[in-house]
Amino acid sequence: MPNFADDDFNLKDVINDLCKPESYNKVFLRPKFHDIHMPSVEELKQAVEMLRSVIFPGYFIHSEVRENTMDYYIGATLDKCYTILTEQFKRGYCFACGSDSICSICETSSENAVKRLFKRLPYIRKMLTMDAEAAYEGDPAAQSLGEAVFSYPSVRALTNHRIAHELYRFGVPIIPRLISEMAHSEAGIDIHPGAEIGERFFIDHGTGTVIGETTIIGRNVRIYQGVTLGAKSFPMDEDGNPIKGVQRHPVVEDDVIIYAGATVLGRVTIGKGAEIGGNVWITRDVPAGERVIQRRAD
Amino acid sequence: MPNFADDDFNLKDVINDLCKPESYNKVFLRPKFHDIHMPSVEELKQAVEMLRSVIFPGYFIHSEVRENTMDYYIGATLDKCYTILTEQFKRGYCFACGSDSICSICETSSENAVKRLFKRLPYIRKMLTMDAEAAYEGDPAAQSLGEAVFSYPSVRALTNHRIAHELYRFGVPIIPRLISEMAHSEAGIDIHPGAEIGERFFIDHGTGTVIGETTIIGRNVRIYQGVTLGAKSFPMDEDGNPIKGVQRHPVVEDDVIIYAGATVLGRVTIGKGAEIGGNVWITRDVPAGERVIQRRAD
Amino acid sequence: MPNFADDDFNLKDVINDLCKPESYNKVFLRPKFHDIHMPSVEELKQAVEMLRSVIFPGYFIHSEVRENTMDYYIGATLDKCYTILTEQFKRGYCFACGSDSICSICETSSENAVKRLFKRLPYIRKMLTMDAEAAYEGDPAAQSLGEAVFSYPSVRALTNHRIAHELYRFGVPIIPRLISEMAHSEAGIDIHPGAEIGERFFIDHGTGTVIGETTIIGRNVRIYQGVTLGAKSFPMDEDGNPIKGVQRHPVVEDDVIIYAGATVLGRVTIGKGAEIGGNVWITRDVPAGERVIQRRAD
Amino acid sequence: MPNFADDDFNLKDVINDLCKPESYNKVFLRPKFHDIHMPSVEELKQAVEMLRSVIFPGYFIHSEVRENTMDYYIGATLDKCYTILTEQFKRGYCFACGSDSICSICETSSENAVKRLFKRLPYIRKMLTMDAEAAYEGDPAAQSLGEAVFSYPSVRALTNHRIAHELYRFGVPIIPRLISEMAHSEAGIDIHPGAEIGERFFIDHGTGTVIGETTIIGRNVRIYQGVTLGAKSFPMDEDGNPIKGVQRHPVVEDDVIIYAGATVLGRVTIGKGAEIGGNVWITRDVPAGERVIQRRAD
Amino acid sequence: MPNFADDDFNLKDVINDLCKPESYNKVFLRPKFHDIHMPSVEELKQAVEMLRSVIFPGYFIHSEVRENTMDYYIGATLDKCYTILTEQFKRGYCFACGSDSICSICETSSENAVKRLFKRLPYIRKMLTMDAEAAYEGDPAAQSLGEAVFSYPSVRALTNHRIAHELYRFGVPIIPRLISEMAHSEAGIDIHPGAEIGERFFIDHGTGTVIGETTIIGRNVRIYQGVTLGAKSFPMDEDGNPIKGVQRHPVVEDDVIIYAGATVLGRVTIGKGAEIGGNVWITRDVPAGERVIQRRAD
Amino acid sequence: MPNFADDDFNLKDVINDLCKPESYNKVFLRPKFHDIHMPSVEELKQAVEMLRSVIFPGYFIHSEVRENTMDYYIGATLDKCYTILTEQFKRGYCFACGSDSICSICETSSENAVKRLFKRLPYIRKMLTMDAEAAYEGDPAAQSLGEAVFSYPSVRALTNHRIAHELYRFGVPIIPRLISEMAHSEAGIDIHPGAEIGERFFIDHGTGTVIGETTIIGRNVRIYQGVTLGAKSFPMDEDGNPIKGVQRHPVVEDDVIIYAGATVLGRVTIGKGAEIGGNVWITRDVPAGERVIQRRAD
Repeated sequence: MPNFADDDFNLKDVINDLCKPESYNKVFLRPKFHDIHMPSVEELKQAVEMLRSVIFPGYFIHSEVRENTMDYYIGATLDKCYTILTEQFKRGYCFACGSDSICSICETSSENAVKRLFKRLPYIRKMLTMDAEAAYEGDPAAQSLGEAVFSYPSVRALTNHRIAHELYRFGVPIIPRLISEMAHSEAGIDIHPGAEIGERFFIDHGTGTVIGETTIIGRNVRIYQGVTLGAKSFPMDEDGNPIKGVQRHPVVEDDVIIYAGATVLGRVTIGKGAEIGGNVWITRDVPAGERVIQRRAD
Repeated sequence: MPNFADDDFNLKDVINDLCKPESYNKVFLRPKFHDIHMPSVEELKQAVEMLRSVIFPGYFIHSEVRENTMDYYIGATLDKCYTILTEQFKRGYCFACGSDSICSICETSSENAVKRLFKRLPYIRKMLTMDAEAAYEGDPAAQSLGEAVFSYPSVRALTNHRIAHELYRFGVPIIPRLISEMAHSEAGIDIHPGAEIGERFFIDHGTGTVIGETTIIGRNVRIYQGVTLGAKSFPMDEDGNPIKGVQRHPVVEDDVIIYAGATVLGRVTIGKGAEIGGNVWITRDVPAGERVIQRRAD
Repeated sequence: MPNFADDDFNLKDVINDLCKPESYNKVFLRPKFHDIHMPSVEELKQAVEMLRSVIFPGYFIHSEVRENTMDYYIGATLDKCYTILTEQFKRGYCFACGSDSICSICETSSENAVKRLFKRLPYIRKMLTMDAEAAYEGDPAAQSLGEAVFSYPSVRALTNHRIAHELYRFGVPIIPRLISEMAHSEAGIDIHPGAEIGERFFIDHGTGTVIGETTIIGRNVRIYQGVTLGAKSFPMDEDGNPIKGVQRHPVVEDDVIIYAGATVLGRVTIGKGAEIGGNVWITRDVPAGERVIQRRAD
Repeated sequence: MPNFADDDFNLKDVINDLCKPESYNKVFLRPKFHDIHMPSVEELKQAVEMLRSVIFPGYFIHSEVRENTMDYYIGATLDKCYTILTEQFKRGYCFACGSDSICSICETSSENAVKRLFKRLPYIRKMLTMDAEAAYEGDPAAQSLGEAVFSYPSVRALTNHRIAHELYRFGVPIIPRLISEMAHSEAGIDIHPGAEIGERFFIDHGTGTVIGETTIIGRNVRIYQGVTLGAKSFPMDEDGNPIKGVQRHPVVEDDVIIYAGATVLGRVTIGKGAEIGGNVWITRDVPAGERVIQRRAD
Repeated sequence: MPNFADDDFNLKDVINDLCKPESYNKVFLRPKFHDIHMPSVEELKQAVEMLRSVIFPGYFIHSEVRENTMDYYIGATLDKCYTILTEQFKRGYCFACGSDSICSICETSSENAVKRLFKRLPYIRKMLTMDAEAAYEGDPAAQSLGEAVFSYPSVRALTNHRIAHELYRFGVPIIPRLISEMAHSEAGIDIHPGAEIGERFFIDHGTGTVIGETTIIGRNVRIYQGVTLGAKSFPMDEDGNPIKGVQRHPVVEDDVIIYAGATVLGRVTIGKGAEIGGNVWITRDVPAGERVIQRRAD
Repeated sequence: MPNFADDDFNLKDVINDLCKPESYNKVFLRPKFHDIHMPSVEELKQAVEMLRSVIFPGYFIHSEVRENTMDYYIGATLDKCYTILTEQFKRGYCFACGSDSICSICETSSENAVKRLFKRLPYIRKMLTMDAEAAYEGDPAAQSLGEAVFSYPSVRALTNHRIAHELYRFGVPIIPRLISEMAHSEAGIDIHPGAEIGERFFIDHGTGTVIGETTIIGRNVRIYQGVTLGAKSFPMDEDGNPIKGVQRHPVVEDDVIIYAGATVLGRVTIGKGAEIGGNVWITRDVPAGERVIQRRAD
């Protein structure tokens, strides 16, 4: 218990120091502390788990769901999720809006974003089902499609990504990044919400894989752990800060395979059906069908 | 809150779309939704933590355990754990059984698997104690054996693995994979439950390390983060799907060291005492005692 | 439910086996089970989250904090945190002290460590604010400084590190390692509490990055995922065990950039402004300003 | 922390004493500890709250229920409730069955009881709606029917009672009593599950009211706090124990009012429309329409 | 698990029956289910506990509060409480408003009510401190004033009452009744929020005590368990329903004592310093200083 | 959200008012806020539930306990309970001690009190088993002894009482009262911890029953709801405050029955085998074997 009369320690001093405006000012980007709360990562995480349980009924949260009762669980879960998400998206908009009065526009934008997301759920589930199939078919160790849904980091990360990507497209601030970072923390796979990813995508093992903001990935692509689809370098503005929003990540066409630890940097194109070997470092276009292999130590 | 009369959004439509049989059919591999619930990842996670607390008393869950009270804590924890695991293993068997009637055989199999696992616990603890010793002795930064137990990802991942491997050997479906994926998420180490791992195994740092299903690892082996013990390529069946169950991962003999980022692919043998350098790519047998080093950039 | 009369299974036998002194002895390093409880990872994790919420008010735990109410939240949180940490630090000291009587010295040491940590909080926040700025400025995908605080693994891992490093300097046993391992598990970034890291440090993506115990990093350094700042080899004592405490990790000077997957081993110096390419393997000093690039596969 | 070597205190002795068969034998009525768990009051309480939320949607648990989403919430809640209740009812049957082998009959009985209860839910809601109306109309302080549902102990206790009474009629052991005792604890109203209660029943304030097992209450009856409808005396068997199952409590006909603190004992009949004054003591039949008043102190 | 194909049981039928408009209509008084959620008893209960912890710091929730840290705890708790209460009061207003559009007036009314309540908190604490003193001084078994605060049902019930009474005066619908019913459930004391109660009020033991809506109690009054201050009868309107809002409960002047089980009915006045004996039934004015005693059985 | 600039409302003002010394001073009886925390009702409640689960294994908390596993559950539960109770009893002693330095004497007293309590547990269980038997035998509605243990308020209240009474005898401050008040809140039965109660005691229904501090009850006594064993009047000291510690409650000898609502006041003796009728008011000795009945309204 703090001794307040201690010669050289006083909790109140610590607190006061931490509350001085010069101590925290720059961290908070919002021009002032206005009335809307900050987004809550915990609430958002809960909502993402709800969406996961709706997309793959029975696998998550409600292990008792059956065909006959699915509508009840999906209905009640989506209704609750709607409430959480409209609140959190609103906070996300206000996090960025910079206004210091009541943000009715942020509230409207939030509702619209949730509605648009919900209407996309059947599409998202369809895509994720195909991703799970690709995982099952692409891994000899997989015993069943269900196993891919239940336990593959690839499917988990893509669930978050396909949700976050919709929100990124709608322009919801901060929230998509929080959602993709959840997957990064859990699955070790770092996909920026901006990346466009086609159907039947599979990342085996996945730890350390990075997919940058402006990456475009075609259909039926398979990549492995530790693969980087990154930016080579980025143009600076006159202040020496990177210019935001430039197309700077690879385009990966259909049916490409990229093995573990390979690095592809810059706005290069890996052509249809190409195969990139493990640990290879690529900063140029690779023609369709080509196999690029590292010179081996052996 | 959803506006049900909205022109272009109706929550009921979303729900109905998500409940159409064509929308979810393929995801669920079970031929029908029968009465047994799906495995619950949450319940299973709790049971694994209980086992961890029994294997290393005092370190996890019950920080108050002492020598004189150990039997009470271990006894009560195992008894509760028994109840959880028989239920979850049964769900695991039914997840795979495909039957649509009551599965008494799944219930019996589950009980047997739990009993077999419990009888192996002293052995599992003995192995893990040696793993912790190997970690302590292999890392100059380790201050105590207790530190290795408490905080080393290697020990955490191997605890899950040594449990999951027993279940894999008994033929319990899906559950071993869920247990190993927990370790993957927490420790960044992806060990397939099928891998056979000898005593005194240590993975330093561990993030990104992958050990495939048919890998065999001897005694006293040390590997580092980002090491892949993977499959080179795998034979396809006539439908172009990988054939399951082929021996396709490396054999690593006693006393081998494999440094960070090295990749060993295929059913090759790394001979006793061999040393594989960082970032090296190996697809051939390495004789006992050999040191393989990448040509350096410097 | 266990059948105690089963021919070949008896829960009591399992429990008894697990309680035999020869079964667990070596795991527990404490000379005897004395009265102080073991550190509780759960309690410690809660305290670290509290500190995070105090350092970046509004972002974590208490999303309702505003400028006018910040002092209440910081005050109440630090006061609670003080109680938790004095208990856990005491347990940490006793984990190492080996005494079997009441440890009044461990209690005093614990209180002093908490007080010293709290007095460093304004400094820690200042450093972390600069780290967040470096992240924002170093990543073209970052939309705001707040996004860096909220969702960048780099900032999360450095928060844990900068706390753990203070405790490491004060000599608190085991606790710093537990704190850094939390960040490792969540962010995939493994920074040993002993590493000395200057201001404006940024690890982009971060998964698989390892920074060893005696590493020294200057100002304004940027590294990427999968970078290893490790030990090359370490001297053994006469028993074949590594000698603890030797300076064995790199010194990285100001303004250095190290790209993804690069490995720097041993007590080498990467000179001011040097640039190390991706996947490069370095075991020698690199002069200031030099660019080291791997021979490419292309 | 217990000092195990203390001269006059040893935790192990206490534990051993508490585990001696002669120490607990008579408490456990089950002939042996067989494999089915005991009923869990906590689980049962949760199920009762679920039923309450289904009967009065929006008032309990799910405050977000609306007309358009009611079916989802009711469906998902009842499905979960079904799982909990079949388990708890089974435990209830086994609590009483005295068998020491597997009780398939208890399992079947439990399922049947849940199904019968669920089929009665519309009836139970109808009755409780009328009880709420009677409360609203009978209390000048009530502002709305909703207030009666939300906050009247009478409605709360009757919800538990009308559920428990169905189970009592079906012959489910112990469970009905546990349910009625929950209401007793929360609302201070002690209604035995055996009591038969007609529609539009209202107990104002309610604390201390007791309604015995064989009581029969007609339509439109209103009673107040502290009223006892009890047994006068009960016949003993040859061992001096009360004979169970005798009709020994009052019959209260339609439209009766019984004021606070009145006591009615024995199998007497309070005739239609009679009015019993406060604190009055009745052990005889009261003719229809009669007013019985205590001689007052004033 | 429900068998949906069972001959005579089908969960869907039960659900459908419970969702038919005629099945639930009358329970919901709100003319339509509009968008605002119903009040949440759980949220409200949490807020009341927060207020209790602010009024008596250290006794509830935050047992670590000290003089030097009190402001932090009170500040953070009130700030959180503000958020909860504005939401719940708004729901309370909407519960009663009957509007089917957005209720901006309910939102404003709610904010005003919370602000008014908060401004009354110092007064409420002053009153409750005097109530605790009266309890301590009036009960020979009380060992300390702190004991009265900690454990006396009288103080607990009056805390809820003095909060609820303020809200009753401000015209907040339903919420005050929910708050007073919490106290009724926990302490067995049923005080209608409308009752006006002077300083230094003490109810010893308290179970079964009832204090009606229009009761007025002076200073320094002491009553015991089972006392009723109720309505004698109430005028009906032409439909036979009780007319709301009539002054129908007793006026109890300063320094009165009313012993256990006494019943005082109607708008009568118990004059200053009068003493009403146990179990006595009063329906007339009692002059100041008079002692009314029941004729005893002995 | 509070508007801090509002003309007439400012949260900071409210907080400041509530923190002024004159606002809270008298409530806190401890001469200064010293370092020991206040007792935590929540922690204490948890410990009492643990003791209940140890006394009646299987009925509370751990419904899975069986004969063969009882020792584990009892052992682990008592060990945890020991930790909680030594902390809470210490807080209880410090609540009363008035010291402003470290209270080593309170710590020692606390440990001794826990040890003494634990040694009494077999005796307490024996007494409660007999109480349950008395309940079963005394109530024709009881179906089994287990039902009495599970659901009778009498057994619940006596469990708390028999624990609290031991602590009262040992002189532990405040804690016994908190424990007995828990039972009062849950069961509606208010037994002061000081009351001495013999074996085979049964309170049927129980709501509103009050048993005062200096009451002495013999063997085999049965009482009903609403019975008061209270003080008639109490001598005042020169300041007009009641003198504490006087013998002022009834002595009830063996085999007495007291029916519902009866009131017995003062240090009178109800002789062996006497029977007191319902609602009777007694302030004199009643000879052994006498039946006292109220003159009835009928």
